[in-house]
Amino acid sequence: MEKINDFIPGSLNVIAGPCSVEGYDSLYHSALALKEIGIRYIRGGAYKLRTSVHSFRGLGDSAILHLAQVAKETGLKTVSECTQTDKVEFMAEHIDILVVGTRNMHNYPLLELLGKIDNPVILKRGIAATYDEWMAAAEYIVENGNPNVILCERGIRTFEPETRYTLDISAIQVMKQKTGLPVIVDPSHAAGKRDLVPSLACAAIAAGADGLMIECQIKPCESICDANQTIEPDTLKQLLDAIPDLRLHLSRMEL
Amino acid sequence: MEKINDFIPGSLNVIAGPCSVEGYDSLYHSALALKEIGIRYIRGGAYKLRTSVHSFRGLGDSAILHLAQVAKETGLKTVSECTQTDKVEFMAEHIDILVVGTRNMHNYPLLELLGKIDNPVILKRGIAATYDEWMAAAEYIVENGNPNVILCERGIRTFEPETRYTLDISAIQVMKQKTGLPVIVDPSHAAGKRDLVPSLACAAIAAGADGLMIECQIKPCESICDANQTIEPDTLKQLLDAIPDLRLHLSRMEL
Amino acid sequence: MEKINDFIPGSLNVIAGPCSVEGYDSLYHSALALKEIGIRYIRGGAYKLRTSVHSFRGLGDSAILHLAQVAKETGLKTVSECTQTDKVEFMAEHIDILVVGTRNMHNYPLLELLGKIDNPVILKRGIAATYDEWMAAAEYIVENGNPNVILCERGIRTFEPETRYTLDISAIQVMKQKTGLPVIVDPSHAAGKRDLVPSLACAAIAAGADGLMIECQIKPCESICDANQTIEPDTLKQLLDAIPDLRLHLSRMEL
Amino acid sequence: MEKINDFIPGSLNVIAGPCSVEGYDSLYHSALALKEIGIRYIRGGAYKLRTSVHSFRGLGDSAILHLAQVAKETGLKTVSECTQTDKVEFMAEHIDILVVGTRNMHNYPLLELLGKIDNPVILKRGIAATYDEWMAAAEYIVENGNPNVILCERGIRTFEPETRYTLDISAIQVMKQKTGLPVIVDPSHAAGKRDLVPSLACAAIAAGADGLMIECQIKPCESICDANQTIEPDTLKQLLDAIPDLRLHLSRMEL
Repeated sequence: MEKINDFIPGSLNVIAGPCSVEGYDSLYHSALALKEIGIRYIRGGAYKLRTSVHSFRGLGDSAILHLAQVAKETGLKTVSECTQTDKVEFMAEHIDILVVGTRNMHNYPLLELLGKIDNPVILKRGIAATYDEWMAAAEYIVENGNPNVILCERGIRTFEPETRYTLDISAIQVMKQKTGLPVIVDPSHAAGKRDLVPSLACAAIAAGADGLMIECQIKPCESICDANQTIEPDTLKQLLDAIPDLRLHLSRMEL
Repeated sequence: MEKINDFIPGSLNVIAGPCSVEGYDSLYHSALALKEIGIRYIRGGAYKLRTSVHSFRGLGDSAILHLAQVAKETGLKTVSECTQTDKVEFMAEHIDILVVGTRNMHNYPLLELLGKIDNPVILKRGIAATYDEWMAAAEYIVENGNPNVILCERGIRTFEPETRYTLDISAIQVMKQKTGLPVIVDPSHAAGKRDLVPSLACAAIAAGADGLMIECQIKPCESICDANQTIEPDTLKQLLDAIPDLRLHLSRMEL
Repeated sequence: MEKINDFIPGSLNVIAGPCSVEGYDSLYHSALALKEIGIRYIRGGAYKLRTSVHSFRGLGDSAILHLAQVAKETGLKTVSECTQTDKVEFMAEHIDILVVGTRNMHNYPLLELLGKIDNPVILKRGIAATYDEWMAAAEYIVENGNPNVILCERGIRTFEPETRYTLDISAIQVMKQKTGLPVIVDPSHAAGKRDLVPSLACAAIAAGADGLMIECQIKPCESICDANQTIEPDTLKQLLDAIPDLRLHLSRMEL
Repeated sequence: MEKINDFIPGSLNVIAGPCSVEGYDSLYHSALALKEIGIRYIRGGAYKLRTSVHSFRGLGDSAILHLAQVAKETGLKTVSECTQTDKVEFMAEHIDILVVGTRNMHNYPLLELLGKIDNPVILKRGIAATYDEWMAAAEYIVENGNPNVILCERGIRTFEPETRYTLDISAIQVMKQKTGLPVIVDPSHAAGKRDLVPSLACAAIAAGADGLMIECQIKPCESICDANQTIEPDTLKQLLDAIPDLRLHLSRMEL
């Protein structure tokens, strides 16, 4: 399980990239910008689960091939969401880390298939899933043979309308203790607006998160999905510069 | 769309049956008991989405064939949950009404396939889905060609621990007005305990629900799933006797 | 405890009236209209707890005196919310039934004082209170000497933005069983819009509620508070006509 | 408004102490231990709002006098919750900073009186209050003449049973921007268990909190209230040692 070993260690596990792959060129240029600031993992959606049937649904298979090509050109590793059982095999071949999105945390047939591949799987928490249900979903993958599960807290649904979701910062420590699995945080979807992303990212690291998944691209305002919550590489760079010291510092706390 | 026409009108649209099909004989005897008290639709799970990987997962395809056989013997119509895209065709052939469970309300690839069949589809609300998201999920089915969508309110997740979910009684009127679709209620999953089922069922009818889906079987305490919330045919009979007058009565209110 | 005995029995316990008392004349005319349709209890706010410091805060003590005068003229009984400890004695003298609003369910010093008077007390559920916390709040009143507590479910806060609150219909049966106290329902605050009020009121009665508290006045659109959720006496009349049969009918169910 | 100026600046605003004052001696010894590790503010409850009428309700006025005496002996400043209008004057005389607890955020008569004193007021968020309602509650104090309001995020109620409340880490940045007021965090009540407290405290500081309010005393396991979430002075010391660097470090981020 070399891939997951590559992911976990104390180094900086930051996954960044556009919400969706919107074309090869824009992906490639975002990838270069991300590589330049030290990012090693690029994310990008191919098959988008959109609430409205009329929304942009992603480029599908060609987005996966664009990601694979960008990986080849830049040396970045790739991360993308798998939304249906009949794409597992294809994605496992072309993408390094597969993601189960919040809407599929309870999609047990999908989880079972992801348990039969070797790629690491990032399992996002359902928007109203308890810790126990989330852990039980991870077990579907692990029990089917794939121990490389990374949990991702991305906010839960509450009554507060001003943020898209409420980031549950307690989930980091609790889930690490309950499962022994690495826990990363997606501050972009939780916040729903870019101004909040750095603050939530810092909080996540301070609370012990093993990594971050952040929507970031050049020209975020032109992105079709999630433009409001996508940050620019420059903002991400400031964040990245801060994090290693932050982690080092916190590691001395022995709390 | 004869099937849905059969479903909607002012008559009593009550779907009842065991949580899961646990064998042909027990299903057949429950079916006879249900038929005797006037039920026309039998439900039963084949592919169970269970939170724990270690729970009973249903009999799979053979449960579907048991349901079809029972339908043939008793004249009841059948209702069962479709949990994955590769079962849509098989189920559409053998089952009258397909159900999308709460965990799959956002499973858009599944919804799209259900839009391409003729069978009515019962679309349960996600446990944390807003009215708008639920309506948008229904559109995935309708826009793909199947107008026979029946919405099913089954409770949302709140902070209250004493009931399994909180039945959102307001959803009935609001969703009927927003969508023009029939709205039925599943009091069994909302309550999580059988004592509450009749009270919630009456409230649902009084609030204008077009039907009920209730877990009911002979010997409920022996059922593998959801034993605590399953009622006996006798209790259901009392409920059924009350409902027609209740509806007639409320229809005179012109509210 | 004659007052509470007057309240509980199987007869129709409907409390109606304006959100706030806005003047003697309008209160008097609403009272006459309510009396004519058979209402025996008039409600009206005197000391309004408004989220914004800039909102209309009620007429204060003079509203209480208006209510008392209207009661004298019409024979109606009066119901009004007590928001602070230093008004308990004054209100207990002039008003028949005192109300603890949702914002004060946890105001234990207020509850203790209300335990030392003889008037019945309607205890509304806090917007995020569990059944156990609500029951514990009732105990503060009962243990201090006043057994005449009536619980009022008025909706809890959830993620759904389209209704003001989510009416928890299960609370009726569960709280009656847990506490032995009567449970009434306020559909007006739960709905937040008048179109939903009749549907929620019928559901509440069908679920076993012992009464209703409804915002109702002549010319609801002119009311300063809660205009959107206030119904007219004519609408309330239709509802009232339906309820006795509904209750009679349900009483035959023996569920 | 010298007191609040004393509170706000970049220095370490950490309030610590027992949930309730349980006697002079134990308070004094906890105060000494806290002073020794650099704490400048001691908290302690006098009038406890307890969910159950049978729980320990605090020592009342004598707890306030104990706090005042300990302040005199140690030079610490005092922080305590004011739960009712008739205690405002007495507390304002003896205590430095008054607290409005989560159950009283909507107690507008209390907020108005707190607007007429000079002491800083810590306003905790209601367990189901939105940002806008919380801000509106702060306005009740400010508009009545007291600008020294400090907001305190202490967790909101969600469906997750494993933590006592869900700390809403986003509230820190959003409320600072919306109101311009300082925002502190109470990780103890949010967590409900001491193991989580350091992790949440670090996250709060990293997200930009202006201070912390932490339940801490010698021999936490002997405390009558909240024993499970109370930490020892040694644990707090480790946290304190880490925070100044953490803040300095984050201040260089310019995010």
